[in-house]
Amino acid sequence: MTRLQINEVAPRDGLQIEAGFVATEEKIRLIDALSATGLARIEATSFTSPKAIPQLRDAEEVVRGIRRREGVGITVLVPNLRGCERALSCGVDEINLVMSSSDSHGQTNLRMTPAQSLERFAAILEATSGSDVFVNASLSTAFGCPFEGEVPPARVLELIGELIDIGVEGITLCDTTGMANPAQVGSLCKDVLARWPDTPFTLHFHNTRGMGLANALAAWQAGVTRFDASLGGLGGCPYAPGATGNVCTEDLVHMFEQMGVDTGVDLEALLAVSATLPALVGHETPGQVVKAGKADRRYPMPRITGSMPNP
Amino acid sequence: MTRLQINEVAPRDGLQIEAGFVATEEKIRLIDALSATGLARIEATSFTSPKAIPQLRDAEEVVRGIRRREGVGITVLVPNLRGCERALSCGVDEINLVMSSSDSHGQTNLRMTPAQSLERFAAILEATSGSDVFVNASLSTAFGCPFEGEVPPARVLELIGELIDIGVEGITLCDTTGMANPAQVGSLCKDVLARWPDTPFTLHFHNTRGMGLANALAAWQAGVTRFDASLGGLGGCPYAPGATGNVCTEDLVHMFEQMGVDTGVDLEALLAVSATLPALVGHETPGQVVKAGKADRRYPMPRITGSMPNP
Repeated sequence: MTRLQINEVAPRDGLQIEAGFVATEEKIRLIDALSATGLARIEATSFTSPKAIPQLRDAEEVVRGIRRREGVGITVLVPNLRGCERALSCGVDEINLVMSSSDSHGQTNLRMTPAQSLERFAAILEATSGSDVFVNASLSTAFGCPFEGEVPPARVLELIGELIDIGVEGITLCDTTGMANPAQVGSLCKDVLARWPDTPFTLHFHNTRGMGLANALAAWQAGVTRFDASLGGLGGCPYAPGATGNVCTEDLVHMFEQMGVDTGVDLEALLAVSATLPALVGHETPGQVVKAGKADRRYPMPRITGSMPNP
Repeated sequence: MTRLQINEVAPRDGLQIEAGFVATEEKIRLIDALSATGLARIEATSFTSPKAIPQLRDAEEVVRGIRRREGVGITVLVPNLRGCERALSCGVDEINLVMSSSDSHGQTNLRMTPAQSLERFAAILEATSGSDVFVNASLSTAFGCPFEGEVPPARVLELIGELIDIGVEGITLCDTTGMANPAQVGSLCKDVLARWPDTPFTLHFHNTRGMGLANALAAWQAGVTRFDASLGGLGGCPYAPGATGNVCTEDLVHMFEQMGVDTGVDLEALLAVSATLPALVGHETPGQVVKAGKADRRYPMPRITGSMPNP
């Protein structure tokens, strides 16, 4: 059975939506702790304009400050050529481009249509050619758009084809606002893996409507082995008020490990890092295993005081 | 595709663990609202000793006070012969017996070994013979025990066989403290449905470690069509501190409806009832769809103020 590859996105996707700025040295400490747990990749930051995302204005200092570890890829979000140059100068392993599957979300999120995004990506790919940096693209709203609704699977497949044509090496299918359901996920993943068996596809779920782990299960059943996830379930989406965050890394790792699927992750170590998040971000996190303990947690038998039948 | 049958357990499983007593007329209003949503069954209360569960001390008044509706079965938890007689006198459609799969949980929860529970059930079945009340048994800790750990599937199958032998008509497999994982659920459900194809099996999950919906998905994939669920995710387990509640009815209905699986439930109506819970129980509930809206919820496009790439 193939080992899963978990891409931890809390330092980027989680922290960029927090109200407060997490100090650079605390970000570095978080990422260093995460990279010691066996995660395959960590999305460390975003090389965006500091004005657009002040929470991540320390992108260079973070990437230069973290301890690099054999086997743990450091990836960063890159919105444009300038961001790509900044990222390359710091020696990242991977850059993650982002575009929307739907026009309205692209306009809102990036001020670009998918066609404009593809043009921009082509310029970025020229800049990375010759380097050994891996170029991934995240396709937002691949399972539905909060503004226009359904995004036809044929449209998603078309965009994937164009991304691969211009030289993108890996693709992340993103359920940006938690609209995906397991039937839809299973179907799209099967189609995509059958059509591009050599491209590494990653699935990025949100737990907005409680389906995060069910969707991850459906993707895995379809053959997917790479997942984005966010420690503690940090994250969310600025355009979906009321929504909870990304699928929680330790809950995802826990589920698959309980199923006997190897994630390569030391869950105890990961839970210990997750337990530091409330102090770091100033609020509770939605993660559940960190509160309830792993399924193999044992309780002492209470003193028997009465009959309380409860199945 | 078979319509799912959802058994709503919040009035019993949810309210029995709340600190406060919910007034009888409010319980009746809740159940009446629930029975108008298309749910197949409602576990309305528990005919337990009022001293053991004072929250449900009004069992008779509740069952006698609710409006009975064609197609909505009223089931009640019954711990012993006395409870059975009380339930029968109120004209319920179904009684739900409860026993543990594990000795230590049985001792703690019921002060009985599984063998003692089976003896007690036999006496109850004598009392119901001749009536047309349906007798269901809930098998707690069928996926693991918080005190002794693993419960071998062979042991669960053995207990199911004994329940069927003494005349129990339906069986609910309960993941009492949220220890089940989808691989385990799929495997046990397949075995059980293959061995007893004519017995109605219901699955009862908790979302303690976030796997509630993933487990329901795995059960459904194995052929299960009957689920217990609790409005708002109310419920929990007194012996698993830190644990969240039962799998949330509206989140479960939402997932299956999104997948194109008919539940017979009017989700809008169900969400409206769920929205009344915080005022009823005095705290927020863990349900997610009631907060985020259904997956087909559309947002107005915000005014575009800046570039905020976020897959």
